Amino acid sequence: MAAEAAPSLVYLPAWRTEDELVEIAGDEAHYLARVVRARSGETVSVTDGRGALGTLEILEVGAVVRARRVRVERRARPATLALWCGAPEGDRADWLVEKAAELGVATFVPVNFRRARWERFAARRERWERLATAALRQSRSAYRLELTEPVSLAEALAMAGAVATRWVCSPDGRPLGGLPAVADGRVIGVVGPSSGFVEDELKVLSENAFDPICLGPVRLRTETAALALAAIWGAAAGAQAGPGSGMS
Amino acid sequence: MAAEAAPSLVYLPAWRTEDELVEIAGDEAHYLARVVRARSGETVSVTDGRGALGTLEILEVGAVVRARRVRVERRARPATLALWCGAPEGDRADWLVEKAAELGVATFVPVNFRRARWERFAARRERWERLATAALRQSRSAYRLELTEPVSLAEALAMAGAVATRWVCSPDGRPLGGLPAVADGRVIGVVGPSSGFVEDELKVLSENAFDPICLGPVRLRTETAALALAAIWGAAAGAQAGPGSGMS
Repeated sequence: MAAEAAPSLVYLPAWRTEDELVEIAGDEAHYLARVVRARSGETVSVTDGRGALGTLEILEVGAVVRARRVRVERRARPATLALWCGAPEGDRADWLVEKAAELGVATFVPVNFRRARWERFAARRERWERLATAALRQSRSAYRLELTEPVSLAEALAMAGAVATRWVCSPDGRPLGGLPAVADGRVIGVVGPSSGFVEDELKVLSENAFDPICLGPVRLRTETAALALAAIWGAAAGAQAGPGSGMS
Repeated sequence: MAAEAAPSLVYLPAWRTEDELVEIAGDEAHYLARVVRARSGETVSVTDGRGALGTLEILEVGAVVRARRVRVERRARPATLALWCGAPEGDRADWLVEKAAELGVATFVPVNFRRARWERFAARRERWERLATAALRQSRSAYRLELTEPVSLAEALAMAGAVATRWVCSPDGRPLGGLPAVADGRVIGVVGPSSGFVEDELKVLSENAFDPICLGPVRLRTETAALALAAIWGAAAGAQAGPGSGMS
């Protein structure tokens, strides 16, 4: 088989895995040509960010990169975390989104809580999408973070569906004291904004079966709590990880 | 008792808890006068960052703040994490240090591994110390992150003492699959630099009883792995947390 180009993972959200020939344009073509410096005859890894992982052989490198499908597989996703997150302070959301993506969070849901709204979402979204793609490449995962539009708590609850494991990070929550069970493999974790929840929000979450948990011995900022939650979830889900797992 | 000034925690590393009268100068005096806007007659919380937590009554606010000791207690520290960390890429160390401090890491040890040195340590140290103090205030903890000078792996090992729980984050480590036991309450966690360990370093760590662990289903950057490790350790240690614990 052909040599692999420098370790790389191309993100093709519109990839049709049934096609034998693939044309890659835009950012990903630039990534292949200028960053990876892939050459004709080499192979690269590719994903649609939704579970398909494949190998392409490069046929031609240019503004459009032409490639041939060598191999495709589907990766199962044993567990997912949806992070419902209040707005952190200032520009802390940049790395919050990057780290959520890197830690394998499935869906990042910006929630407009009473005390803080995601005012800068529209202005930052493009940057956050780029960070999510960079994190996908870094993690060499077959699943990319999905970033939703900001929603109200009521709207988020309406989307929650039948997810059995529901946590809300709260100063008064119970200490975990052990890795939480990830019942049906789907978890929703709620983190309040920098200014905290109002009483009503905690009440509504409690009525909707969200279990208050406390992440450790100290008070954490919004973005730190969100990342701690993702890390703890990742450790709980880690035992179920598929091939190609690992940490560099 | 007097009213408390806006929620605040003053960091006085040289605080002599036996003194009844306290003089506060420099950054912390500025913090009290300009940020907290403390007034004479109000009380503020104070810590030496090494377990002493107290309440002071403000007598006079100025370039030097004069205060009177109202109450002092010592907080026990049930568990500690020393993070031996390789250099991350670029300026990612800024938030790595901030988040390590916020998550309650006891000691941050920058380790110069073969493939990456902490070249910017001297230039950034002052900033990192400030971030550690800000995180102390945020977390309202009685313990502040201690930041050591960069050391070689051999030097770090010479300092390790009798710590029983030793982890090294490795792509080939065992998945945790549960919160790890924190045997004697002291843990050392090693995270490699962005460019990874060399084989010899992993061998030396193994010979020194470091247990290879894998933090989750995906590959993580240095700073993300360090943060994930601190969060997982925090969750393991959380059950032992003292009064005043919580998370905002």
